[in-house]
Amino acid sequence: MTYCLSLLCKEGIVFLSDSRTSAGLDNITIHPKMRLYERPGERIICLMSSGNLSLTQSVLSLMDEDIAKAPADEVGTSFLNQVNLYETVRYLGAKLRAVRGLDADVLRHAGVDFQTNFIVGGQIADQPPQIYRIYSEGNSIHASKESPFLQIGELKYGKPILDRGFSYDTPLNEAVKIGLLSLDSTMKSNLSVGTPFDIFSYHTDSLEAKHRARLDDTSPYLRDVRNEWQKGLVNLVHAIPELDFSSNGGE
Amino acid sequence: MTYCLSLLCKEGIVFLSDSRTSAGLDNITIHPKMRLYERPGERIICLMSSGNLSLTQSVLSLMDEDIAKAPADEVGTSFLNQVNLYETVRYLGAKLRAVRGLDADVLRHAGVDFQTNFIVGGQIADQPPQIYRIYSEGNSIHASKESPFLQIGELKYGKPILDRGFSYDTPLNEAVKIGLLSLDSTMKSNLSVGTPFDIFSYHTDSLEAKHRARLDDTSPYLRDVRNEWQKGLVNLVHAIPELDFSSNGGE
Repeated sequence: MTYCLSLLCKEGIVFLSDSRTSAGLDNITIHPKMRLYERPGERIICLMSSGNLSLTQSVLSLMDEDIAKAPADEVGTSFLNQVNLYETVRYLGAKLRAVRGLDADVLRHAGVDFQTNFIVGGQIADQPPQIYRIYSEGNSIHASKESPFLQIGELKYGKPILDRGFSYDTPLNEAVKIGLLSLDSTMKSNLSVGTPFDIFSYHTDSLEAKHRARLDDTSPYLRDVRNEWQKGLVNLVHAIPELDFSSNGGE
Repeated sequence: MTYCLSLLCKEGIVFLSDSRTSAGLDNITIHPKMRLYERPGERIICLMSSGNLSLTQSVLSLMDEDIAKAPADEVGTSFLNQVNLYETVRYLGAKLRAVRGLDADVLRHAGVDFQTNFIVGGQIADQPPQIYRIYSEGNSIHASKESPFLQIGELKYGKPILDRGFSYDTPLNEAVKIGLLSLDSTMKSNLSVGTPFDIFSYHTDSLEAKHRARLDDTSPYLRDVRNEWQKGLVNLVHAIPELDFSSNGGE
């Protein structure tokens, strides 16, 4: 299983992913699920993936082939030379459909779902930063001020903290913490989501991938976050007044 | 959709359920999902249900028939005269299998899953209090000090707060608050779970159903809980130190 999350803020975008890949409980490996495509000063694109690892890797391999052979001044022929993020995402969707053509029939006969999901986001030149979710069918949606986060993979455990704590106006540094708590809550409730966590915090108009981190279970920061969160939650519950059953429909 | 939750504590048991029943988004009604069977001083049994409402109601109707016709001194013939909670739960499982015999084939042909889940718990005489989850197949599991809560229905959104905030040693009054937050988090993240919330807090060896409440959106207590929780979470995140990207694998 996988959990990837992207938070669109007024100040920028936060991308977070776990690194656990499993094919059954006895075959757990670590694969980075976050890729950064960087042309400093021109475009920054972050890609995260969940679902069938074979399909994901096929999509990425087809994209890499195009990147390798595209001349520097060409437009619209690779993941890195599209005119805007929407076309970038459509390009990825086309590659996804190409992989569908290669593998979907055989997988269906074997009873395997064609499942591969992507989050793609970032900024191109002076265009507004944006994040997209691309579905297994190749179509996509983007975030908005009203619905400012996108998730793929094991998304339910980590959603309540986002619903309560995050909005488009949340400062970028706070969004990093909320995203980390969302990942860590998911990891605590589902063994198949695990560290290391990859984090990329993008500041609007910086057009560089400066703020990146990888946190594993030995990270003092991650340990502190977990301790403070656990302790804080229990204190917070304790501070809430008790239910008076005699005044609330009690008998 | 439904969310029901039961928390086994050293001091007793907390039962909580929502009341939303939906058959598609345009057909939402309110059905209580919590039933209390009370023989004060002798046994208290709380039952909660999720899944296909028709199946749930059939199981309960068959059980009611037995209760109505069982003589007062009979043993082992109804939901309310079993020798212990395990036999009570096996009895329910047998009724569930009877309904399977009545309906499962026709439902399967219509493409409808045979889905009905129950939580049953309480105390009989001086036996230890316990909670059970009964699956659609009629088999069951019970909680333990190490795994002290059971959920049915839409369970993922409400699990992180339990994983962080609840243990067997949590005082009963705190468990009521944690359970309520688990329900409310689920309702916030999934529109098909909704108020009113039914709550029953059982004190071990009381053998009475004294502490009951029903909270809806107009409840001042529920409003206070929501406000304090939302405000408290944001403050808690704010108090956590910021991630220093330069010392954590940052470039």
